[in-house]
Formats: sequence, C-alpha cells, structure tokens
Amino acid sequence: MRKIEHIGIAVKDIAAANSLYTSLLGSPPYKMEEVVSEQVQTSFFRIGPSKIELLSSNHQDSAISKFINKKGEGLHHIAIDVEDIVREMKRLKSQGFTLLSEEPKIGADNKLICFVHPKSANGVLIELCQTIKLWSMIY
Amino acid sequence: MRKIEHIGIAVKDIAAANSLYTSLLGSPPYKMEEVVSEQVQTSFFRIGPSKIELLSSNHQDSAISKFINKKGEGLHHIAIDVEDIVREMKRLKSQGFTLLSEEPKIGADNKLICFVHPKSANGVLIELCQTIKLWSMIY
Repeated sequence: MRKIEHIGIAVKDIAAANSLYTSLLGSPPYKMEEVVSEQVQTSFFRIGPSKIELLSSNHQDSAISKFINKKGEGLHHIAIDVEDIVREMKRLKSQGFTLLSEEPKIGADNKLICFVHPKSANGVLIELCQTIKLWSMIY
Repeated sequence: MRKIEHIGIAVKDIAAANSLYTSLLGSPPYKMEEVVSEQVQTSFFRIGPSKIELLSSNHQDSAISKFINKKGEGLHHIAIDVEDIVREMKRLKSQGFTLLSEEPKIGADNKLICFVHPKSANGVLIELCQTIKLWSMIY
C-alpha cells in the first residue's frame, strides 16, 4: 500500500467535466482513454504523485451508468498503488476481505487491477493497482 | 493544488472501521481527533504522502450523520493540499465555483480549510486545505 494512485469520479458528460476539472485543478487531463471491457471513457489529471480519473459511461448497462442512476455523479472509487497485487490480494483474502475477481485484470492506464467489495470496506469501492512493467512482459 | 492531502470516508462505527482499515492498509491510525465544531470523531491513516480520514458522527444533526442517513457509509470528500488557501479561494470563485464559506475555517489536523460545493464539481465535495505553520502564528 504505497500511495493513493488515483481517485475515480463518475460523471455524466466527460467533455463538460474535463473542462470543469481543468479549471478546478489548474491543468488539463494528460490522457484520455476508452476502456472497452468496462464500457467507459476515462480522463486522467495529475495532482502531485496521484491522479484524478473521470469516468463516463459508453453504455447504459455499464457499472458507471448503474452507479450514476443509483447514487448520482460523484466519488466512485479510490485506487491504491501496490508493489505486488497478487501478494496483496492473498493477504486481504486471508483477512476476510471480499475481492471482485480471483485474478488481477488489465485496467486503464497500464495497470493490473483488482477491486475490493465495498461491503468489505464501509461502502468504499477500493481498487488495488500495480503498474505493468514492460520488462515483465518481455522476459 | 499540490497533492491529495486526504480522502474522507464517512463511517457509522469508528472503532470497527479503525480495525478494518488497519487490516486493509497494514498499519494503524496515527492520530484520532474530535472536531467539536463539526460534531465528528476522526481517525487518520498514512498512505504514502496522503492520508485516509475516517469520520463518524457525534451527534444526529451533524453533516456526517445526515450524509450517512442519505447515502450510506462511504466516500465523503477529497481534500487537496494548497499552498495559499485564500489565493485558491479567490481563483475558484472567479471561475464560478461555489464555496461553502467566505473565509477559511480551522479544521482537523492543524489545517485551514474551505469546501467547494459538490454542485460545482460533479457531485464531489472538495476540501481545500493549507497546513497552519507555527511561525505564521508567532510572527
């Protein structure tokens, strides 16, 4: 658990939200990326060593669409940077936390990710994420 | 806008949540503090250069109590560390953001704070915070 990697915010209109968060944070998103598997469009803003990720839905059945329909726009998840996601998943499982997948998945921004169920963490959706290193894919 | 200073999480039972987040993050809270003006009890966990703040209500009329009654436990606000809170408040006001106070207030953890209305920021309650320096109180 090395740092807050990013905070995910669910928004309806990502173009409008990009403009608003550019004003708020004082600099524009450094990256925009579609995550086809999650049916979302994302934008990333740097804030010191962390990021803010805006997420909008590309499909009415996406998790982000369902979240906004239920709770409205707003804070969606926090992502914590870990050195070894498999080790952390094992550790958390052994302590009774419920994980949303048995294996890490490939997420946005070149990460291996796994979510901890909000019921395990006082209603907070927590993402563990580990940066995929190029050398680990070559060797 | 220098870094994510902390993420605030609203919880019902702070003792149980302290235990859970100690397991999750791998280390216990480094500080617990009551904020009488806000009718809340807080706990702070370090995570790299940022913190996680748990907040529970000490009174049924507190903002945290109302939040939990409306939305349930979960992510409540994000706090952004700024160098000069008065300058940032002026900047945001001039760009159309709605602030919840005209002047900075004294918050938990030795900070000057000001909240940006969630309606200004896609449903996200954003706290600006500036660390109070001892020398600024002496000279």
